[in-house]
Amino acid sequence: MSLANSLANHFELSATDGGARTGRLTTPHGVVRTPAFMPVGTAGAMKGLHWRDLRAAGTDIALGNTYHLMLRPTAERIAALGGLQKFTGWNGPMLTDSGGFQVMSLSDLRKVGEHAVTFRSHIDGTKVELSPERSIEVQRLLGSDIAMQMDECVRLPAERADIERAMHLSLRWGERSKRAFESAPAGYMLFGIAQGGDMPELRRASARGIVDTGFHGYAIGGLAVGEPQAVMLAMIEEVVPHLPADRPRYLMGVGTPDDLLEAIRRGIDMFDCVLPTRNGRHGVAFTRFGQVNLRNARHADDPRPLDEDSDWPATRDVSRAYLHHLVKSGETLGAMLLSEINIAYYQHLMAGIRDAVSRGTFADFYETTRSNWERGDILPR
Amino acid sequence: MSLANSLANHFELSATDGGARTGRLTTPHGVVRTPAFMPVGTAGAMKGLHWRDLRAAGTDIALGNTYHLMLRPTAERIAALGGLQKFTGWNGPMLTDSGGFQVMSLSDLRKVGEHAVTFRSHIDGTKVELSPERSIEVQRLLGSDIAMQMDECVRLPAERADIERAMHLSLRWGERSKRAFESAPAGYMLFGIAQGGDMPELRRASARGIVDTGFHGYAIGGLAVGEPQAVMLAMIEEVVPHLPADRPRYLMGVGTPDDLLEAIRRGIDMFDCVLPTRNGRHGVAFTRFGQVNLRNARHADDPRPLDEDSDWPATRDVSRAYLHHLVKSGETLGAMLLSEINIAYYQHLMAGIRDAVSRGTFADFYETTRSNWERGDILPR
Repeated sequence: MSLANSLANHFELSATDGGARTGRLTTPHGVVRTPAFMPVGTAGAMKGLHWRDLRAAGTDIALGNTYHLMLRPTAERIAALGGLQKFTGWNGPMLTDSGGFQVMSLSDLRKVGEHAVTFRSHIDGTKVELSPERSIEVQRLLGSDIAMQMDECVRLPAERADIERAMHLSLRWGERSKRAFESAPAGYMLFGIAQGGDMPELRRASARGIVDTGFHGYAIGGLAVGEPQAVMLAMIEEVVPHLPADRPRYLMGVGTPDDLLEAIRRGIDMFDCVLPTRNGRHGVAFTRFGQVNLRNARHADDPRPLDEDSDWPATRDVSRAYLHHLVKSGETLGAMLLSEINIAYYQHLMAGIRDAVSRGTFADFYETTRSNWERGDILPR
Repeated sequence: MSLANSLANHFELSATDGGARTGRLTTPHGVVRTPAFMPVGTAGAMKGLHWRDLRAAGTDIALGNTYHLMLRPTAERIAALGGLQKFTGWNGPMLTDSGGFQVMSLSDLRKVGEHAVTFRSHIDGTKVELSPERSIEVQRLLGSDIAMQMDECVRLPAERADIERAMHLSLRWGERSKRAFESAPAGYMLFGIAQGGDMPELRRASARGIVDTGFHGYAIGGLAVGEPQAVMLAMIEEVVPHLPADRPRYLMGVGTPDDLLEAIRRGIDMFDCVLPTRNGRHGVAFTRFGQVNLRNARHADDPRPLDEDSDWPATRDVSRAYLHHLVKSGETLGAMLLSEINIAYYQHLMAGIRDAVSRGTFADFYETTRSNWERGDILPR
């Protein structure tokens, strides 16, 4: 089924240290340093951040949501305008999901069949069909550097029969996604997705299945959907040994800084999550010393910044008192500042990990990072 | 009543051309080039703009609202944190209004007396008293480079008796404001405000009154409150001849680019207005060729920027199609981009006027600017 050139490897693993890895993934729109965190630009925009500031914060690659973009402004319109990178002005690497996950979480009257998912748009109620073939067509129209196979994601906890059915359907959709992707130009990539819920045996079977099909990279989907972190990490440990070491590994929709550190320690290379921007909009900062809720009155008179040793200007220079005031007053600037502060922290963490793995000091980095988080925020004055 | 040093002049008029003027106003936090447009950072923040981008767009001075800041986070708190410039991180010149205007427009159960205005806070219903002395105290606590006298502003149309009563009250409040300001350190400024509604005779009397009292600069208040532009310009023409040529002149709460051009032609040096950011949030751009409503479907497939010859990156590089998509999708980034595009246009206009007045080519600049606005936006493709 695979054309030889369509599985060319664009990932270069430069170092490993224990389970942790660092490398470079070359896409048509630029190089992605791994481990990589991909901020989520749902409908072609980051919430509260300019693309220029996303780049300045150390971001190599962003994620776009196929579901949102196919409904508005439509994939055909974005294609006519030169693709998602040109449309948004980001002009860097982009990964798009298959749209399947948002169909499940956002649309009404959805029906999953062997051929496709049908649903009603959350914007205007239009009936839409999304098949693996259409998902790939949409992602190709968007011009995403990395497309994702269509899959079905089951919320946990769930019955084994449901998890198993969705896992097998995802394998068949993976094959169809790959077939649909074969006409893509060289350099563009398609990733397969392992499903299997919280069932080790199903996770292993799914991992073997997607590797048999063969993709440019491999994702783990269907986690961070309600299960404890320990279950998530256990599932990663089931899947990773079955994935080829020379291909990138992507844990979808994850997570907290702690989730990322633990997953990287278990061999994951890529992540995406709305958490840094969503928490930013809710007044919560991620810092070297854990999470800080700026809504708390303890910050009202505190002239100190979130972290005076940070290399990100807003983290180092903006006072807690000002952030508190902005959050309490509902000023957009509060969400804007905290979103960039959080993205910068995530990218700072990724950069630190990449550096530590390169130097073979990941274990030290891991201990120091955890002990800083556990130390917690500075004391009130 | 005036201490000699408290009326030291910090304004240097460098050139005039017809009625138009250009100069430099030196404040404790830096120099303001005039004509100057002051974006409005109501509660210590610009809506949708980082302070760094406000500066990059050519802004010398911003405005803060005393009413909002005295209620939250309170002037005392801002003073303890080092003043409004340090609190916000703007660190440049700031002008604050007296609070009187917002008391009239935002608060409930307000009562105007000779001594003070009493009102209930729109945030928590607390009863607050604002007198000229308290207004100056608050503005001093905020550390504003330019404080405004307390005045009473009447919405137009209004009865002559009401306008006259408010005008005389404002003159008395101006004297009290000045007395309260006399202990301010050197370099800080207090501006008087001419009222008088749409009555030429009352405007002239008010202008003479504030000049008799003596201030560092002179404002025209109570315009852009519902009257036609022709009335506003006529009132400027009544007031300006009574103001000393060597002091800055500030038209409060104005306006459109057209209002600014016409007022500058009649001798005004400073402006503030929420229009560029408010219109930006509503999907409207100010450009060299007039206003553009990005919500209009004509932009949906248009890859062209708002103005390919602009020197502001977002105006020159971001496609109309993307802006249209962001506005239609309600993405914050749409408001953020259009707010900065609009502020950059206002500051570009101010810079063009300063340059033209310096060269003695204001009449040409005026004609070219008006004819560009009248030409209107580029045709749809």
